[in-house]
This record gives sequence, structure tokens and C-alpha cells, in this order.
Amino acid sequence: MNNKLTTTVSTFFNGIGQVMFQQSPWTGLLFLAGIFWGSYECHLPQVAWGAAVGTAASTLAGYLVTPKSGDGRAGLWGFNGALVGCAFPTFLANTWLMWIALIFCAMVTTWVRQGFNNVMAPWKVNSYTFPFVFMTWLFLFAARTMHGLDAVALSTPELADPFTWSLDTSFGSLVIYWLKGISQVFLINSWITGIFFLVALAVCSRWAAFWAAAASAIALGIAIMFKADPADISQGLFGFSPVLTGIAVGCTFYKPCLRTALWTIAAVVATVFIQAGMDAIVTPYGLTTLTGPFCVATWLFMLPQYKLNKQVS
Amino acid sequence: MNNKLTTTVSTFFNGIGQVMFQQSPWTGLLFLAGIFWGSYECHLPQVAWGAAVGTAASTLAGYLVTPKSGDGRAGLWGFNGALVGCAFPTFLANTWLMWIALIFCAMVTTWVRQGFNNVMAPWKVNSYTFPFVFMTWLFLFAARTMHGLDAVALSTPELADPFTWSLDTSFGSLVIYWLKGISQVFLINSWITGIFFLVALAVCSRWAAFWAAAASAIALGIAIMFKADPADISQGLFGFSPVLTGIAVGCTFYKPCLRTALWTIAAVVATVFIQAGMDAIVTPYGLTTLTGPFCVATWLFMLPQYKLNKQVS
Amino acid sequence: MNNKLTTTVSTFFNGIGQVMFQQSPWTGLLFLAGIFWGSYECHLPQVAWGAAVGTAASTLAGYLVTPKSGDGRAGLWGFNGALVGCAFPTFLANTWLMWIALIFCAMVTTWVRQGFNNVMAPWKVNSYTFPFVFMTWLFLFAARTMHGLDAVALSTPELADPFTWSLDTSFGSLVIYWLKGISQVFLINSWITGIFFLVALAVCSRWAAFWAAAASAIALGIAIMFKADPADISQGLFGFSPVLTGIAVGCTFYKPCLRTALWTIAAVVATVFIQAGMDAIVTPYGLTTLTGPFCVATWLFMLPQYKLNKQVS
Repeated sequence: MNNKLTTTVSTFFNGIGQVMFQQSPWTGLLFLAGIFWGSYECHLPQVAWGAAVGTAASTLAGYLVTPKSGDGRAGLWGFNGALVGCAFPTFLANTWLMWIALIFCAMVTTWVRQGFNNVMAPWKVNSYTFPFVFMTWLFLFAARTMHGLDAVALSTPELADPFTWSLDTSFGSLVIYWLKGISQVFLINSWITGIFFLVALAVCSRWAAFWAAAASAIALGIAIMFKADPADISQGLFGFSPVLTGIAVGCTFYKPCLRTALWTIAAVVATVFIQAGMDAIVTPYGLTTLTGPFCVATWLFMLPQYKLNKQVS
Repeated sequence: MNNKLTTTVSTFFNGIGQVMFQQSPWTGLLFLAGIFWGSYECHLPQVAWGAAVGTAASTLAGYLVTPKSGDGRAGLWGFNGALVGCAFPTFLANTWLMWIALIFCAMVTTWVRQGFNNVMAPWKVNSYTFPFVFMTWLFLFAARTMHGLDAVALSTPELADPFTWSLDTSFGSLVIYWLKGISQVFLINSWITGIFFLVALAVCSRWAAFWAAAASAIALGIAIMFKADPADISQGLFGFSPVLTGIAVGCTFYKPCLRTALWTIAAVVATVFIQAGMDAIVTPYGLTTLTGPFCVATWLFMLPQYKLNKQVS
Repeated sequence: MNNKLTTTVSTFFNGIGQVMFQQSPWTGLLFLAGIFWGSYECHLPQVAWGAAVGTAASTLAGYLVTPKSGDGRAGLWGFNGALVGCAFPTFLANTWLMWIALIFCAMVTTWVRQGFNNVMAPWKVNSYTFPFVFMTWLFLFAARTMHGLDAVALSTPELADPFTWSLDTSFGSLVIYWLKGISQVFLINSWITGIFFLVALAVCSRWAAFWAAAASAIALGIAIMFKADPADISQGLFGFSPVLTGIAVGCTFYKPCLRTALWTIAAVVATVFIQAGMDAIVTPYGLTTLTGPFCVATWLFMLPQYKLNKQVS
């Protein structure tokens, strides 16, 4: 019984940790602590509760169809649901219909992940957070045509999105943008949460913490150099996808070495342009890219299946 | 000679029956009867003639490249053409250029189906009605930039599609929406045609008739609960994709049992949200989703390849 | 040393030749000559220099990860970069940030090509020019949200694109549209460049020259018949994708014979509608289709894997 409880708890927190590829309940616990801190700081406590509910719902959905599984215990059924749980209360009004939709969507992501992974298996990549991205996009689009889902925090749909470029680039501000780039992985706009996340990563993998920090910094530099949308930069919205790309390419799917580091930098830089490009694609819908740019960039840099480690180390 | 005629006639009607997965010339005949009834009732007789021409053209296209085939006789070369034949005269002006485009597009769907099925074969799914959806989308998009194809019945492109929510939910009206949800599979807006289709399905498969009826009802309930576009609801536009999902998942690709029934209900519910989401995606183009939501939902629920039957019956 | 120089030079020009599937340094040289002529004629010399820089950058990118390769020498690492090099200076302002982006994007296309080809290998098709299309789309989208990339020559984003249909169809004008349809493969708007390209093709393959000429003529006829956008027709913008489809289907992936000729004509006609359709899709973004319609059409007609030659010759 006690043992069963331990397994359940560690399954749950692994699910949150796997959002950044870490199979560690302690990392998951610290992630959730950071989410709670940030969501209460931003007066959106429902985001943190959504993360917990979404993780539980999507993990449960896996066990409903496949009673026994290592995937479940490793947290691989939880991470898409965790992100659905952060995204729904961030963009939609806090109503009971939203919670029903959140739970249903979180459950579907686990099944969709199985399907997408089946499709991608021959090329040795997987669906990453794309089940979350794909299903949440569909529900946010649906919120545009369903009065039962109220898209209170989505932008107004518009054709082009002109802006004047002005950004506070003092050192202190840059540090805040850099940390927010990390916190935004869970859609949290708080530099303190960014510190939580860095510590949480370091608990499980120093390399993951290093690449999260490095990728957010590189992305910030490129975004400023090419004068991307300053409002997005200051909220860390050019950081979260590169952070995930950095952890994925830099130390999850390749072993760290000089060649893979150069490859990861190229992937991180590409993620910034893909982020800017996808921002323009979703503007007429007033939608958000979610972690789509990370998925696209990581697929692009993993699909060639270059054997970078063998040739070096 | 007589035998050849019988084969030709049954090939033709099988093609219409396969739109709802039924390989039965009688079902196809009753479908076409329903289409004729509804299209004359709506003062668009060209839709019914289009269905006949499209079925013939796409079936012929298959024989041009592969002279002998069981696929052809089973009606699998006809159903995409049947739908092209319904869609073109529904949305485009009745000109001779429209008929040339209809015939060409119907022919191409048969070849495209072969290609798409080749692509999807490793995952044991197929392209369903997606060749029709994909090619018809391209031609309807093209109608926006070609004066030779006049998009008389497409909506005005607009960024968002705000609406006030008001729907007559008397029992009689709900029955009509429910039946129109079934008739709209062939783009027909007539509750009498819906009855034709239910009878036609029952002739070949009681389960297919059951799931068509159940799926249209479930979809209607979810669409009303989440207050989807009332104009669409009252024309059955939230029903036709779930109807196809229901027949496909509930009794075509899985054998009916309690577990697959629950799975089918989840797929039908998902189809409603996918319908609402895809409506929002095509709004800036003034386009229509066709049966795209059915294809997406059915792929999502078939790709995981869960063995639901084995574990139960 | 001298031998090494020859290999380098022939690798470079093969890269330009492969844009139209010709592995011949002489064809590549004549292509580049035509590009220089046309780009200076249009007062956009940076387009020609971009083509040279892009070809070099993308070829180099291949050697950085895979030191030895027949693909590289055959020019298969160069052609996507050549097109990136033509496209960036055509649509973006001539700044140093544009050149950095051009070089980075050209390099990425070579890696992306490897990944896309891995994905498509099971179905015996490849990615054609899609790595160029996909990455350039992302960067042109990004230019909408990055002040560092100035989209000076992209259209204004708008919802629909109404136009009055009026076109000079004198014989002389038709010949010019026809030749520009060929020159636009490299985004050059010059009928003289079209002649350069026909000669360059004939040097390597008479069939390629024939299908380029035939496809541009057929496409012109269909575009006029269906009254497609006259401004696009007169600049050859309905020709370049069909030209590539014609060369690909007519004499690269199928051996020329009567059956494959009919198949190629169907593919070329389809490309015109796909071009018109994709034009409508990108209008709200003020974007351009690049050679996307060619890729889509050629996939659609190659994926069925019909054995057209065996049954005839």
C-alpha cells in the first residue's frame, strides 16, 4: 500500500519533470513549486492547479487503455497533460466548461502521443510536446467559435502586427528576460520561477541546467540582434522553445561534446527564427505558438540522424 | 454483357455507399436517392448530378492506370469522387469550367488516394475521405484567385466570426438538426435525406445505422453544451464529421463491444472540438472544413493502435 | 591540387544545375549566367550574388557534418542553397543581417534535406526543393515580426485579393509570359533569362528542355482558360512550378513514353490549380508560394508509384 502510494506520487511528479526531459520526482516537485510561486505571483492560481489536474488526468488516461506500463511510471504520460493544464487556464476563462475541456484534452494528449510516436518511430524521433501543442491549438481555435470556452487572454486576430522597436537592455533587465525565458516553458511569466526551474534541473542533470541557461541566453541575443518583438522578448517568449531545444539536442538525444555543442547552438539559433516565423503564422488567429517552435526545430535537427558523437569522442 | 453491366452498375453504387464505409450497391442507390431528394428540395439539382458524374469520373480514373482491381469494384475508387461531385456544385457557380474542374479533380482524388494510402500503410490507417478534402480545398482556394471558378456559395473571408448565441431547442427542432447532421455527410441540408441515409445504412449494417444516429446525437449535445455556432448547429454542420467518425471507429475498424463503444464516444466528442477548431482555422479564407475533422479525429484515435477488442470480448 | 579545384568548381555548378535536376556543371554555369543577366536587368544584382553565396554555403554545410559524399559532388547539397540565395535578396532589404540570415538558412537547408529525405525514403520520393521552400517560408514569416529583416518586396497581407481580369494576349506577349515562366524557376523576371535556361537544359538533356518548354506553355494555357490572376500570369508566376513538375515527372523520375507523357500533362495541369490554391492560402500573410506547388504536385503524382513504363514500352 505504502509502496503503491510512493509509485503513484513519483509517477505524478515524473510527469511534471518530463516536460523538460527529466525523469525525477524531485525535479517535478521543484517544477511544481515554481509553477505555484509564479502563478500566485501573476494572480492566476488556476494555472498551478490546472498543471496538477492535467498531469493526473493524462496519466490516468494512459492507464485506462494500457493497464501496465513503464512509460506511465517514467512520467511520459503526464508531461503533455501538465502543459495542457497550464495553457487552458492561462488563455481561457475560469469556468466549469473550461475544466471539463481541460480534463478531456489532457486525457486525449496521452492517446495522441501514442499515435504520433507510432508514426515517428521509424525515424527514431518522437512527438516531444507536440500532442500538447496540437490538441491545445485545436481547443484554442475552437474557443473562437464556441461561447462555452471564453478566450479571454488570447490576442485580437489581426493581419499584420506592426510594432516600434524599443527595449530596456540594462543588465538587470536582460537577466530578468533570460530567467523568464526559462519560466515560460510552463507558461509562467516570473523570473523567480526561472530560478526554481534551473535549480530543479540541476538536481537531476547539470548538463540540462547548463543548456537551459545557455539556450535562453543565446536566444535572447539573437532575438535582440534581429530586433524581434520587444514585448515578447521582455516576457521571455523567445526563450522557452530554445530552452527545450537546448536540453533536447544538447544533452538528451546527443551526448555532450564539442561537435554536439556546435550542433545544439545551430538548433537553438534556428529555433529563434522558427519562433518568429510561427508568431507571424498565428497572428491572424490571435493564437500563440505554444512549444511548437521547439518541436519543429528539434525534429529538423534530429531527423538527419547525423552521428556526431561517434566521429569525435 | 449483362454480367458486365451488373458489375459496372454495382461498382458505381458501391462507390457512393463507401462514403460511409458500406460496400453495398443498394445502400449506394438509397444514398443517391436521398441526395436527389435533398438537392431538388434545396433547388440545387446540380449537386445530385455532380455526385453521379464525380463517382463515374473517379472510378474511371482508377481503371485508366490500373486496369484490373478489386479496389475499383468495391467502390473504393468512387467515394472521393462522389464527394467532389457534391462539393463543387454546392460552392461554385454552375458553369462549364466548373464541370471540367469537377471531373479533373474527381479523377485526381483516385490517384491521390493511392499515394496517401501508400504513405499511411505502415501504420494500418488509410486516407479515408482525405483525398476529397485535400483536393477540394485546393480547388476552392484556387476559386479565390481564378475568375473562371466562381465561389458563389463560400463565406466572406473574415478574421474572427463573432456571433450571438441563440438556438431553437424545441424537441422538433433538435430532431431536425440531428437528421441534418446525417444528411450533411453528402453536403445535403435536408432532414428527409437524413432518414434516407439511416435506412440506407441499416440495409447494409445495423451497427453503422446505430453509430450514425448515436454520433449525430452526441455531437449535437456537445455542440449545444459548449455553445458552438448556432447557425452551423441548426444546419447539421456539427454532425456530419462525428457521424463518419462514429461509423469508422465504432463498427468499421473496431468490432462493437463496450470498450470500443467508450472509445468511439471519446472520438466523437473529440471530433466536435476539432470541427469547431477547424472552423476557426478556415474562417479567414471563407472556406469550409469539408470532412477534414472526421479524418483528423479518426486518425488520432486509430493511430495509437490500441487492441481494445482483445482485452474484452 | 588542380584536380581538387576542378572538383570544387564542378561541385559548385552542379549545385546550381540540380535546381532543375541536371547534374552538369555546364548547365549550372549557363543557369548562373542567365541569373546574372536577369538580375542585373531587373536592377537586383544582389540576387545573382546571393545565388552564388547560397550555393557555396549550403554545399559547405554538408561537408561540415559528412566529410565525404557523392551527394555533395553531384550538386545535391547546393540546389536548395542556390534558391535560398535567390529568394532572400528578392524579398528582403539588402542589409548585412539579411546576408547572415541567408547564409545560415542556406546551410540549414542541407541538413533539413537530409532529414526530409530520411522521412520520405520509404515511399521512394524525396524532398525536391522543399527544404528551400520550408526554411525560406519560416524566414519570410519571421521577417514580418523582426525589424532586423525588412520584407521590402513582399505583398501587403490582406484577406481576399480581388482583381479585374485583363491580359494582353497578343502572340508576342504570350511568348514573353511563356519564357518568363521558365526564368522564374530562379525567381528571375526576364524572358532572355528564360532562353538562357532552355539552352542550359538542352546542353544536358533535350527531354528536360522539351518538358520545361511544354509545361510552361500548358500552364499558361490553363491559367488563361481559368482566368487566373493576370499580373501573375504576365510575370511567369504560373509557369515556374509546372516547369519543375514537367521536368521531374516527364523525364527525371519516369522515362519518357506516351503513357508517362499523359501522366505528366495531368501533373502539370494539377500544378496550375495547386499554384492558384496556394496563392490564396498565403495571401493573408502577403507571402509567396515559392516552389511549393511543384513539390506538392510532384509528390501527389509520384506517391501512387504507378508503374507506367512497364505497361507500355
